[in-house]
Amino acid sequence: MAPQITPILLAGGAGTRLWPVSRDSFPKQFLPLVGDRSTYQETLLRVQGPGFAPPIVITGPQFHFFARRQAEEVGIEATVVIEPLRRDSAPAIAAATAVARQRDPQAVVLALAADHIILDPQAFRDTCLTGLEAAADGAIVTFGIRPTEPKTAYGYIRPGAPLGQSGVRAVDRFVEKPDAPTAARYLSEGYLWNSGNFLFRAEVLLSELARLEPEMAEAVQASVADATDDLGFLRLDPEAFARSPQKSIDYAVMERTDRAAVVEGNFRWSDIGSWDALFDIRPRDAQGNVAHGEVVALDTQDCVVHSERQLTALVGVKDLVVVATPDAVLVVPRERAQDVKALVDRLKAAKRPEATDHRRVHRPWGYYESIDNGERFQVKRIVVAPGGVLSLQKHRHRAEHWIVVRGTAEVTIGDQVRPVHENESIYIPIGSVHRMANQGRIPLELIEVQTGSYLGEDDIVRLEDMYKRS
Amino acid sequence: MAPQITPILLAGGAGTRLWPVSRDSFPKQFLPLVGDRSTYQETLLRVQGPGFAPPIVITGPQFHFFARRQAEEVGIEATVVIEPLRRDSAPAIAAATAVARQRDPQAVVLALAADHIILDPQAFRDTCLTGLEAAADGAIVTFGIRPTEPKTAYGYIRPGAPLGQSGVRAVDRFVEKPDAPTAARYLSEGYLWNSGNFLFRAEVLLSELARLEPEMAEAVQASVADATDDLGFLRLDPEAFARSPQKSIDYAVMERTDRAAVVEGNFRWSDIGSWDALFDIRPRDAQGNVAHGEVVALDTQDCVVHSERQLTALVGVKDLVVVATPDAVLVVPRERAQDVKALVDRLKAAKRPEATDHRRVHRPWGYYESIDNGERFQVKRIVVAPGGVLSLQKHRHRAEHWIVVRGTAEVTIGDQVRPVHENESIYIPIGSVHRMANQGRIPLELIEVQTGSYLGEDDIVRLEDMYKRS
Repeated sequence: MAPQITPILLAGGAGTRLWPVSRDSFPKQFLPLVGDRSTYQETLLRVQGPGFAPPIVITGPQFHFFARRQAEEVGIEATVVIEPLRRDSAPAIAAATAVARQRDPQAVVLALAADHIILDPQAFRDTCLTGLEAAADGAIVTFGIRPTEPKTAYGYIRPGAPLGQSGVRAVDRFVEKPDAPTAARYLSEGYLWNSGNFLFRAEVLLSELARLEPEMAEAVQASVADATDDLGFLRLDPEAFARSPQKSIDYAVMERTDRAAVVEGNFRWSDIGSWDALFDIRPRDAQGNVAHGEVVALDTQDCVVHSERQLTALVGVKDLVVVATPDAVLVVPRERAQDVKALVDRLKAAKRPEATDHRRVHRPWGYYESIDNGERFQVKRIVVAPGGVLSLQKHRHRAEHWIVVRGTAEVTIGDQVRPVHENESIYIPIGSVHRMANQGRIPLELIEVQTGSYLGEDDIVRLEDMYKRS
Repeated sequence: MAPQITPILLAGGAGTRLWPVSRDSFPKQFLPLVGDRSTYQETLLRVQGPGFAPPIVITGPQFHFFARRQAEEVGIEATVVIEPLRRDSAPAIAAATAVARQRDPQAVVLALAADHIILDPQAFRDTCLTGLEAAADGAIVTFGIRPTEPKTAYGYIRPGAPLGQSGVRAVDRFVEKPDAPTAARYLSEGYLWNSGNFLFRAEVLLSELARLEPEMAEAVQASVADATDDLGFLRLDPEAFARSPQKSIDYAVMERTDRAAVVEGNFRWSDIGSWDALFDIRPRDAQGNVAHGEVVALDTQDCVVHSERQLTALVGVKDLVVVATPDAVLVVPRERAQDVKALVDRLKAAKRPEATDHRRVHRPWGYYESIDNGERFQVKRIVVAPGGVLSLQKHRHRAEHWIVVRGTAEVTIGDQVRPVHENESIYIPIGSVHRMANQGRIPLELIEVQTGSYLGEDDIVRLEDMYKRS
């Protein structure tokens, strides 16, 4: 019987090239970029079912609650590993692989980026199975994509001699993003795009790492050995993890190991590294436009339009990317979509909140969104997930009115606990100790009207917090 | 002593070419397009002070409350005349002129579009004074602008022989919007742009109209004679006014009278007929961009960007118009800005609410704006002007929670009347008769949270209404 595959998802990236939809505080892998589900959720669902063990997710300390909640939303129980800081992909893959090996010393691991789009999930799984025997035999299997054009934004793989298993070849060479003439030559010479996903035995990868990057291997191994349970998350030991050098898996292992193999994948794939990538992977209308949301286009060709809530209207334009969110609008030619990163850097330098924060702010218990504000008031929509509990808190400068519009809130004010149902309201005076919880089975939604002379988020005294934020 | 000038403002236009900022339900003359005040308010302020009588405004039956309130906001008491339906400019000017003549049989009238921008108000007033003696002597004086380029969007005037008064010449010819080569020739031949404003004795214009358009003159005269006072507005008799032919003042009078004269104006002027007009009249930055609101532009040239509330970011584009409002975004090349009209026509055909209605809805008592909504709730911000009183009303399908965030509301529920102060709330159960009023000196602002199974605006039973809407 073939071994099961343990998926590990790398979900710690930031991804500012898809600004203003993707921002540091809530990056693209957790966002529904093209459908109802996030690419992280789509990735989880892609590696479900026979042949796959429960997944392991590794992500940063701002994102672990989202990672768990979004997995639960699609009915998947994931082990969520918290990497205390960013050290690029090699330490993250190694740590998650070590966790998989603790579970099963013979584990075969599939390392996946959580922010890619794959349009043919069955073909993807078939490709994984094609590489499984080679991986079980000790290869580190990559998945190459037959290029459709000479992209300069992707890395390339030159396949070498066939190995013992059908469909598996050695890797002659990995190459970084080439210039345009080189990319054209690669196409004619049969190179493949490097999709950045890997299949290997846990033991094999960790041994290669120990051989090639002993310092990293030691640091990662210690961070896993000393990991602590934190509300059901596995928190890697921060001091040990911080000792690891910062390197990508390509530099640390793939370009130096002689165990690299490649399977050609017959699935449509994109790393959606920038907005123009949607032009390649999404369906276009008769005028060549890729549109998401409410879009009206007159005499407009070959544009990518992403409209979150507004109506976006284009007249007489061509080859543009137009992205509209509630608090930020972006217009850039498709061929300059890579420059969005420079734009976001500039917005960060100017300390513009839109650079990093969404209007909708995600919290362990759910999210809130500021929907209006004036000189002495602010209005928020607050959504508390079932089981969510806000911290026991008080404010020095503001009173709050809560109107429940869906579900039932369990509200604590001082010593009193009482339910507040749909179409009921409650008043929280300045300075009073209070808490809200959703003990129900459906999301709790309420409108909060704050009034006072100072309404900053930092006017909060947290007395108790089940998410350890106090 | 020189006679006073009575300004009449034509404020009934629609103006969809500046969509999505200008829409039928609240058109451009009432909007702060370039500063804090609307062009209507700027026009009122331009003709204040020594030499000017109190203004007369003529506008449509959807707009008379805005016209009065916006005049009051800038400290001006205007006579507001309601034209029952649109009949183009000639009947509107004639009706307002007849009202001015009722006030003073010798009145000299200055007919002004309420939606133009004039950057040099003192130069504008000086130009009016230059024409005053000629107007008092019986001329119908127009103001011509020395063209800066061969615009095809403006009408032109060929000045003729000097008349008796300094700076005043006869009009040889009025011409409609020319094609580009003709416009270029006009420039070389000394033609002027026709600014569409006029100065004349009331008696002179009405006599010319009686001679040239007797049917129109009769209809307008009867509509003024039978006008009624309506809450302090002067409502023209609808049946009489409807008998008037529909014609512009150019066709009805100016192109046919031998009393036309022209004074060259030394003020910067625009009729802001489309978004590209802002490129000509507004200051440009070093890259040639005209920006309003929060705009970040990288490597971007010669664009017009109007951002109402969002951050609008442009990278690597040129010669575009980008307009962002809370519910609609527009992207169009500057040279195709005229095509916005066709876009709006298409949106109207598709019955898109954004085509005609703003998210902020103006009412006689103030305005409201929907700021959030869900399946069974809606949140509105409501602002009631001092003295404003909402209708006595009830709803069949919704309850309402009101939280006052500024000012004091006088709330009626059933037989009870009580004040609700800042940071207080009140609940309006389904079916209960209620009313809200602002008896204070500052605007009343409140947040309304509606809950119920149907939340349409048409779920309202108006029992009493001081604005006669019940």
